[in-house]
Amino acid sequence: MKPQLVLIAEDETLIGFMLVESLIDAGFDSLVSVTAREAISALELDAPRFAALLTDIKMPGTETGWDVARRARELSPQIPVIYMTGDSADQWRAQGVPGSVLLQKPFAPAQLVTALTSLLNDAGMAGISH
Amino acid sequence: MKPQLVLIAEDETLIGFMLVESLIDAGFDSLVSVTAREAISALELDAPRFAALLTDIKMPGTETGWDVARRARELSPQIPVIYMTGDSADQWRAQGVPGSVLLQKPFAPAQLVTALTSLLNDAGMAGISH
Amino acid sequence: MKPQLVLIAEDETLIGFMLVESLIDAGFDSLVSVTAREAISALELDAPRFAALLTDIKMPGTETGWDVARRARELSPQIPVIYMTGDSADQWRAQGVPGSVLLQKPFAPAQLVTALTSLLNDAGMAGISH
Amino acid sequence: MKPQLVLIAEDETLIGFMLVESLIDAGFDSLVSVTAREAISALELDAPRFAALLTDIKMPGTETGWDVARRARELSPQIPVIYMTGDSADQWRAQGVPGSVLLQKPFAPAQLVTALTSLLNDAGMAGISH
Amino acid sequence: MKPQLVLIAEDETLIGFMLVESLIDAGFDSLVSVTAREAISALELDAPRFAALLTDIKMPGTETGWDVARRARELSPQIPVIYMTGDSADQWRAQGVPGSVLLQKPFAPAQLVTALTSLLNDAGMAGISH
Amino acid sequence: MKPQLVLIAEDETLIGFMLVESLIDAGFDSLVSVTAREAISALELDAPRFAALLTDIKMPGTETGWDVARRARELSPQIPVIYMTGDSADQWRAQGVPGSVLLQKPFAPAQLVTALTSLLNDAGMAGISH
Repeated sequence: MKPQLVLIAEDETLIGFMLVESLIDAGFDSLVSVTAREAISALELDAPRFAALLTDIKMPGTETGWDVARRARELSPQIPVIYMTGDSADQWRAQGVPGSVLLQKPFAPAQLVTALTSLLNDAGMAGISH
Repeated sequence: MKPQLVLIAEDETLIGFMLVESLIDAGFDSLVSVTAREAISALELDAPRFAALLTDIKMPGTETGWDVARRARELSPQIPVIYMTGDSADQWRAQGVPGSVLLQKPFAPAQLVTALTSLLNDAGMAGISH
Repeated sequence: MKPQLVLIAEDETLIGFMLVESLIDAGFDSLVSVTAREAISALELDAPRFAALLTDIKMPGTETGWDVARRARELSPQIPVIYMTGDSADQWRAQGVPGSVLLQKPFAPAQLVTALTSLLNDAGMAGISH
Repeated sequence: MKPQLVLIAEDETLIGFMLVESLIDAGFDSLVSVTAREAISALELDAPRFAALLTDIKMPGTETGWDVARRARELSPQIPVIYMTGDSADQWRAQGVPGSVLLQKPFAPAQLVTALTSLLNDAGMAGISH
Repeated sequence: MKPQLVLIAEDETLIGFMLVESLIDAGFDSLVSVTAREAISALELDAPRFAALLTDIKMPGTETGWDVARRARELSPQIPVIYMTGDSADQWRAQGVPGSVLLQKPFAPAQLVTALTSLLNDAGMAGISH
Repeated sequence: MKPQLVLIAEDETLIGFMLVESLIDAGFDSLVSVTAREAISALELDAPRFAALLTDIKMPGTETGWDVARRARELSPQIPVIYMTGDSADQWRAQGVPGSVLLQKPFAPAQLVTALTSLLNDAGMAGISH
């Protein structure tokens, strides 16, 4: 079976590598964008190819992870969304999208995998028979 | 015990009356705003007095129920949010706030009461011991 | 707003009356069938008119509430299902449909209303943006 | 159908009356104890007759609502438990029992009814087929 | 500690191998049946030895994964059930058992492990004190 | 990122090793106490350093895992708690803390990891914006 593709938006290279590696171990492919703009372009080119979005909140440029997630949901309404942050967690209740997960750094790779797979399993069943 | 106060943002008078009545029967007081701007002003004046927000999505003016809810959560991060709509339901996954409920019209008064009381019970326990 | 319609399958007249009354108080209309066959016919005639199904398990005839619920879900995959029973509860894990609720008699009218409105609120949001 | 019986432990008479009335409206019978000791005795006499426990935390005497709930669960392991409190909410995470609900005063009657009926519906289904 | 045993019903050998391997990595033993009939026989011989059921839907013969799961629940009412499918997902709401999970192919091994372990953890606690 | 620290209370050395190893694989550090008293001392010295508690129930001495968990929650109200047991599972509904998980031995390492990461993800989000 061809692995599912996760869109990662993360400007710190080292963290990006760790995320990609954790996802490979869990059986997923990844595409890494290093700015919010780049992630939004990847979504606008072809959103349905992505099974999920994993996004940092603060990134270089005027757009943030909050913007990436809203655009992802406009193009692919059921897409699972995971935010990662070291410091802007408090804004999540006002700026996050429904059904999203926020991981506060530092988090263990296994926390990411559980969040991602739980959201995918739920979204798969919500998408049946509409 | 003094009833808790629910902020209602709804421009249709008839629906507003029905909502107020349903909430009185369930043991709540209400304050009705007929535009998004008016609801935002009521929140900015004193947000903590409201136990929950119940908002229509489309209202007269440039602001919408999505804006009211984001402002409510900025000022009162744990406030339960219920959206009501006849037609813009699809935007909820991109524009709604986390943990909110969307009621699609027509809905029964008892659906509103269950949504409101479930959110209040959850929020009460989430707010303990932080 | 026109009330939503709940299909009730219940052969005991007295209980049927009590259910109809509880649903009226909560803001719902009802259609009562007194056999499983009759309920299945009502579904086959026009399933989408029903917002939810409330069914006894044991009824006169060869078909049961388990059959009514499966047929309802084939015709209307997201329809909320509530089973009522005095004695066949144990079969629910093998014969029930996913996401259904089983109420064991005796239950209070408020238990029925909470079960129904919680399922309707969940189904409404699951049905968005597919 | 004979109404189910809820054990209430509450020393303030006025609040006790309000609770009994809310439960009658929802279709339940109640037995009120005005001390923790009295509630524990009522449980020890015959625990299975109670469908649920609704208990204040602070009451006259050395025992508290935390003690009543633990004794109730020892005698009737699946019994739904709702605590009510004006001020000791913070202890709930250390002193409460699993799956319980804590209502912080002031709460609306409808919050109590939703908490009670949700717990009863869940407990009913958890108890099937063991 | 002796590993728990998962019953797998899957007629495609390659997928069967992948499932067994994913389960070994997560700490489980497996028994693979290549038809629904064979899986049902394994259940009828001794159902309690299985901690969970993982079943494809379409398999050779007249019986399907829907039948395997119903038989499993008749013999072992709390057994966690996971269905896997490439194409018959839409029938799940009518043919699945309560509390089951449906994984749509392609899925990552980590999705299977999260679904299985979440169901086992829930079932373990539901089974206490009845 | 520095791994998060999990407090383990377990008197059987072999099981303790297995737990530590499972947690390392998932990306966590551990501190092992071999009595309830020792675990309580570790908590009283500096509770906030622990991200979660994993405790056996029966241990040498007069104190049990139930006591360790209550003390942990008094000092760190949101701390995730997982109990492990081979035989005292029935007491959990009376002696456990709210929101805790009980794993019945034998359990697979992946069950522990899913329980721990799910609780951490939930607690992280509950802790936002109070």
